Amino acid sequence: MPKRDNISMSVIRRLPRYYRFLRLLQSKGVVRISSTELSSKLGLTASQIRQDLNCFGGFGQQGYGYIVDQLCAEIANILGLSNCYKTILVGAGNLGQAIASHMSFESEGFHLIGIFDNSPHKIGTIINDHPVLDIAGLDEFCRKEKPVMAVLCIPRESVGPLAEKLYTMGIKNFWNFSHYDLAMKYPDALVENVHLNDSLMTLCYRISNSGTQ
Amino acid sequence: MPKRDNISMSVIRRLPRYYRFLRLLQSKGVVRISSTELSSKLGLTASQIRQDLNCFGGFGQQGYGYIVDQLCAEIANILGLSNCYKTILVGAGNLGQAIASHMSFESEGFHLIGIFDNSPHKIGTIINDHPVLDIAGLDEFCRKEKPVMAVLCIPRESVGPLAEKLYTMGIKNFWNFSHYDLAMKYPDALVENVHLNDSLMTLCYRISNSGTQ
Repeated sequence: MPKRDNISMSVIRRLPRYYRFLRLLQSKGVVRISSTELSSKLGLTASQIRQDLNCFGGFGQQGYGYIVDQLCAEIANILGLSNCYKTILVGAGNLGQAIASHMSFESEGFHLIGIFDNSPHKIGTIINDHPVLDIAGLDEFCRKEKPVMAVLCIPRESVGPLAEKLYTMGIKNFWNFSHYDLAMKYPDALVENVHLNDSLMTLCYRISNSGTQ
Repeated sequence: MPKRDNISMSVIRRLPRYYRFLRLLQSKGVVRISSTELSSKLGLTASQIRQDLNCFGGFGQQGYGYIVDQLCAEIANILGLSNCYKTILVGAGNLGQAIASHMSFESEGFHLIGIFDNSPHKIGTIINDHPVLDIAGLDEFCRKEKPVMAVLCIPRESVGPLAEKLYTMGIKNFWNFSHYDLAMKYPDALVENVHLNDSLMTLCYRISNSGTQ
């Protein structure tokens, strides 16, 4: 089955979940899984999973299920996880440090090549084997290394001028932890926002409107 | 207009964004905003915003727009941000430290009352004025303080037994940074997941399928 264009974001956002779960099965030595078992473990219907995977050509065989290794490799391939998109992280505060230490960029398609901050207290410190570099050297670094993605862990009010600089230097992909609306400002940029505050406020709403408190 | 029941999650998830933007306007001293201006700044249609707010009774006046203070207070009220849901955070690693230091729980409906870890290196250290407590004392703490929400910043493999303990002690609300599927295990629990890896993999997919690299 050919790969479809215009795949919806909700399908795409389910792929990492499939991938994580298949990796877990792999680590447990599971070789094959039926579509029924896969779906019940993921809390989705078998038909939903089949439909999702059909967007990318379809895998598995009726009555036989999925070969874990194979499906895992296929999804990694669809997600593009073997890429090594050169990435910089800006802002080595608490959040930036956590992201730089906690995330395995390399296994998720990215290669973290530099961490930047403007604070003399942070410049020169080491986070996960990366020395924190002076933001003053950002231009030169970007001209030389040509990163394609920037992780923004700086406060909203600092993002504007920095994003402008990064954008001008050719960085069009952002993993944005700030509340600055990059997508509005740069419509041709690719922005993946992580709004932790929004998530917390949503939880507050849900608790307030439930019987779980 | 009466408040509607069964409001969709996509409406609810837009509220924090409205709220953040209105707070920003407040901080700039903006008193009133037209629905057209509000919508263009948020990248939504005026009709979408009106529909969303109508779910909660409707605010603003045709041709007059919204009073910023008033709408902001109404949305805070809808979200339940004046609650002080007693919250504990488990896992004082990089991520837990970042969450505890970076988030303003108090302005988002929660009151962080305890941080727990099992590592002797972390117990007793101070994060954002909170001493990290020994996880061994969790039962007693919960019996005494009766927290209603737990932030889970521990690895997937440690979540199972811990979640069981928390659930048994009456905690039914979770802000979950791990990849453990709490919602599947405890269908009556309220779980807000933050899957940073999924977000990063989604970005990888989007970059791979665009011309932005």
